[in-house]
Amino acid sequence: MNTNSTIRARRIADDIDALAGITEPDRPYTRRAFTPKFLEGRKWLEQAMRDAGAVTQIDAAGNLIGTIRGAHPDLGTIMLGSHSDTVPDGGRFDGIAGVIAALEVVRALRDQGTVLDHTLEVADFLAEEVSIFGVSCIGSRGMSGSRPPEWLQRVAGELTLEQAIADVGGHPLHSAERDDIKAFLELHIEQGPVLQNEKIDIGVVTAIAGITRIEIIVEGRADHAGTTPMGARKDALTTAAWIALGVEELAKALASGEAHFAATVGEFEMTPNAANVVPARVRMLIDARAERREDMERFVDELDNGVGAIAAKTGVAVSAPRMVSDNLPTPGDADLLDVLDGACQTAGASHRRMASGAGHDTAWMARITKAAMIFVPCVDGRSHAPDELATAEDIALGAAVLLDAVMALDTKLQEDI
Amino acid sequence: MNTNSTIRARRIADDIDALAGITEPDRPYTRRAFTPKFLEGRKWLEQAMRDAGAVTQIDAAGNLIGTIRGAHPDLGTIMLGSHSDTVPDGGRFDGIAGVIAALEVVRALRDQGTVLDHTLEVADFLAEEVSIFGVSCIGSRGMSGSRPPEWLQRVAGELTLEQAIADVGGHPLHSAERDDIKAFLELHIEQGPVLQNEKIDIGVVTAIAGITRIEIIVEGRADHAGTTPMGARKDALTTAAWIALGVEELAKALASGEAHFAATVGEFEMTPNAANVVPARVRMLIDARAERREDMERFVDELDNGVGAIAAKTGVAVSAPRMVSDNLPTPGDADLLDVLDGACQTAGASHRRMASGAGHDTAWMARITKAAMIFVPCVDGRSHAPDELATAEDIALGAAVLLDAVMALDTKLQEDI
Repeated sequence: MNTNSTIRARRIADDIDALAGITEPDRPYTRRAFTPKFLEGRKWLEQAMRDAGAVTQIDAAGNLIGTIRGAHPDLGTIMLGSHSDTVPDGGRFDGIAGVIAALEVVRALRDQGTVLDHTLEVADFLAEEVSIFGVSCIGSRGMSGSRPPEWLQRVAGELTLEQAIADVGGHPLHSAERDDIKAFLELHIEQGPVLQNEKIDIGVVTAIAGITRIEIIVEGRADHAGTTPMGARKDALTTAAWIALGVEELAKALASGEAHFAATVGEFEMTPNAANVVPARVRMLIDARAERREDMERFVDELDNGVGAIAAKTGVAVSAPRMVSDNLPTPGDADLLDVLDGACQTAGASHRRMASGAGHDTAWMARITKAAMIFVPCVDGRSHAPDELATAEDIALGAAVLLDAVMALDTKLQEDI
Repeated sequence: MNTNSTIRARRIADDIDALAGITEPDRPYTRRAFTPKFLEGRKWLEQAMRDAGAVTQIDAAGNLIGTIRGAHPDLGTIMLGSHSDTVPDGGRFDGIAGVIAALEVVRALRDQGTVLDHTLEVADFLAEEVSIFGVSCIGSRGMSGSRPPEWLQRVAGELTLEQAIADVGGHPLHSAERDDIKAFLELHIEQGPVLQNEKIDIGVVTAIAGITRIEIIVEGRADHAGTTPMGARKDALTTAAWIALGVEELAKALASGEAHFAATVGEFEMTPNAANVVPARVRMLIDARAERREDMERFVDELDNGVGAIAAKTGVAVSAPRMVSDNLPTPGDADLLDVLDGACQTAGASHRRMASGAGHDTAWMARITKAAMIFVPCVDGRSHAPDELATAEDIALGAAVLLDAVMALDTKLQEDI
């Protein structure tokens, strides 16, 4: 890292530790959106933003925003951010590293006496992780005008999402959509092993993979496991097993090229699930991720054909694969990627371009502004688990890249890049 | 059927209908052991036994017994029976057909004016199906002195099995073991499609398959489904899929000979079972049934080897298969099988010898007496389901076989067969 940088790894480490201390005590590190612990974390963050000189607010969508007014606020806003909520039994860095890095950029600018022309904002997006309402990216969808209106009536126990957004200080019935944001940047842990394995400091994210979820139902027949001859069965499990292996084979073939592709049978439920009954039914949910849309289309086509062939071979009925959700890949803004490459060089960070297999708030922000993100290494690629780990030094180097990128953008955005 | 027979299909049909009417009203046909409906069914059965001229009692193990004293009771007892309890959402015939056929034999003997030398008993065994206490064949294990003492302390909610046996009228702390029974015969629906497919009236059961249950745990690693490259995963599901297919392949090979063999992965639980997480763990429970012990031993050996090879190939850890339970096959008594073949001919019933893939009370009774069983056809092999169906005519033909066998045994047992 540039030795003149006013980015301080120590401050980042202290902030991460402080937020890590705000967790469900028996389930480190759990701070799910809308819970008392989440609100406690936000209170801490709000104070930290104020200490850094920012004015804070909760926007209509329930996002916590810290604002440093620019010298020429009419130029619009550069926004940095990520999220402070966690999955159950999650880690200390997913989302949090990006919020704290953004906060550190604000502090570093203050320390070096820089006032930007643009207004700078730090966002802690509401509920990036799948929330108690069964949906994710609630805040960034709100800010980008992409939150389906009917979501407000989703319930968790007695609570509606509408009430829950109001409870965190938002105004669920008001629009939170922004048109003043000129660029958005997010730092996030990689959640994969590539940077660590290649000993590279920063991943400049070329695209956030599209996520397609596909449900398949295998309909066998519940027969007595002891008396039904092997040749007279309609075993839903063994047919589902062929499908799971087919998904893996297909995904490996698509992943063998340059572009990121992954597919996983993440949900698998068998009924009646009784020791002495031939499995009657299996429900599978496939999660597929593609950097390139054409790879996803090929996957969906070949899955259709493959499943049909398996059903024909085993004689067990399989529903046509049903697309439950289908989100396109989000390419990083080309200009921002160039700025980030340059910022890596200025900051002395080795870097490579790579895709993100995970979804992020950036994918939603890209609907309303130039948006891009960077990855910092995460030990052994572990994430969404208590042992998730990114070093303060690696996050600080990422923050230095953000700092350089923000300063570069403050000029370049005025040149109409 | 011999047109002189005093067996009446009409009476059998009426009895089946009467018991079918005693069911949890919203879940036909459910009459689980120890429930009020079960006791109501037993009350009906007790009256039917008395109407047929039998003296009734509940033995120490909780079995309902109807007794017709023989002319020479010192010769000992011939027992017929099965069970009146059902699985949840079960059928009208599994177990019940055997109890009603036994009752019809008593009525037929009365109608034809026959008094046997041996005492004849009809048994309704307690809890043949897996009960609310998680165990099965409670009554026949008790009568054969095979009920593990510690079972009495098993609980279902607040209730101990000890109390539950007392509640049905048994004496759980007393021995129910019998040494006076000279022969035991059970009629049961086949619970498989073989007799129907081959248009054969009666299956004379050569052996009740041994049942071995084997647990396998696949230990993968929970990684992010979006970010973890396909080549860097430890996916528990795909490894478990190879194992499920291996079990099927091995079972088909062993089932290709003359002797019955079947193996099923009946329980399959995956964790964390979340759409965006690579499956971390799968628990599988294999149910294997073998008429010949050597087939089971070969299965267990080859399963061990096969699982090891799969783990080596996929790089995902798999526990050594753990035998959860292991019961040997129970051959039908050779003398009784000959008597039953002869009775089929006398009754004019086509018949074949075949193994039972399911467990039955007969397997426990075989520990204390000569025991054997016959199967009657069951439509499409359906069982343990509301659509389970055996015709009254088929059951009546089976009852006629039992009647002929009992009369033959009443003589032959005195000749020391």
